[in-house]
Amino acid sequence: MAFPSSDSLIGLIAGTLTTLSFVPQVAKAWRRRSVNDLSLTMLLMFASGVALWLIYGFLHAAVPIIVANGVTLVLAVGLIGMKLRFR
Amino acid sequence: MAFPSSDSLIGLIAGTLTTLSFVPQVAKAWRRRSVNDLSLTMLLMFASGVALWLIYGFLHAAVPIIVANGVTLVLAVGLIGMKLRFR
Repeated sequence: MAFPSSDSLIGLIAGTLTTLSFVPQVAKAWRRRSVNDLSLTMLLMFASGVALWLIYGFLHAAVPIIVANGVTLVLAVGLIGMKLRFR
Repeated sequence: MAFPSSDSLIGLIAGTLTTLSFVPQVAKAWRRRSVNDLSLTMLLMFASGVALWLIYGFLHAAVPIIVANGVTLVLAVGLIGMKLRFR
């Protein structure tokens, strides 16, 4: 595997941050069993958009976009599941 | 202005969805004056990541990435402001 170029590295760090940012949110929602302040509309639009970013990443063969949005999609779907369950 | 190619179009739709998804979240937070269920760690990591995506977009001259992350950054900073104010 080639060492990533500096701009790919920025993309990888960016993707790591935006993706991992959902981990404390998922953890907080699970711990509190409360997602009242999260907007379901937001979560559904966000997950749909992330799914399209994933397709965009594949079309551009842009690895940071593929990895970041793949993981984010899983976490966003988890939040949607909790939103529907913890009413 | 050239008509966007089909993959740029997917990126534009993706960016529109992920970006506009924050509008109902900001509206809900403002209406309820409540952001208790939002994780501050999440918001700070997310905003930092979005700022780096913006740089990545400029380095790749990728218009959908620039526009989407520029607007998302503004909305995310708004949520951080409310998080700090509505304690």
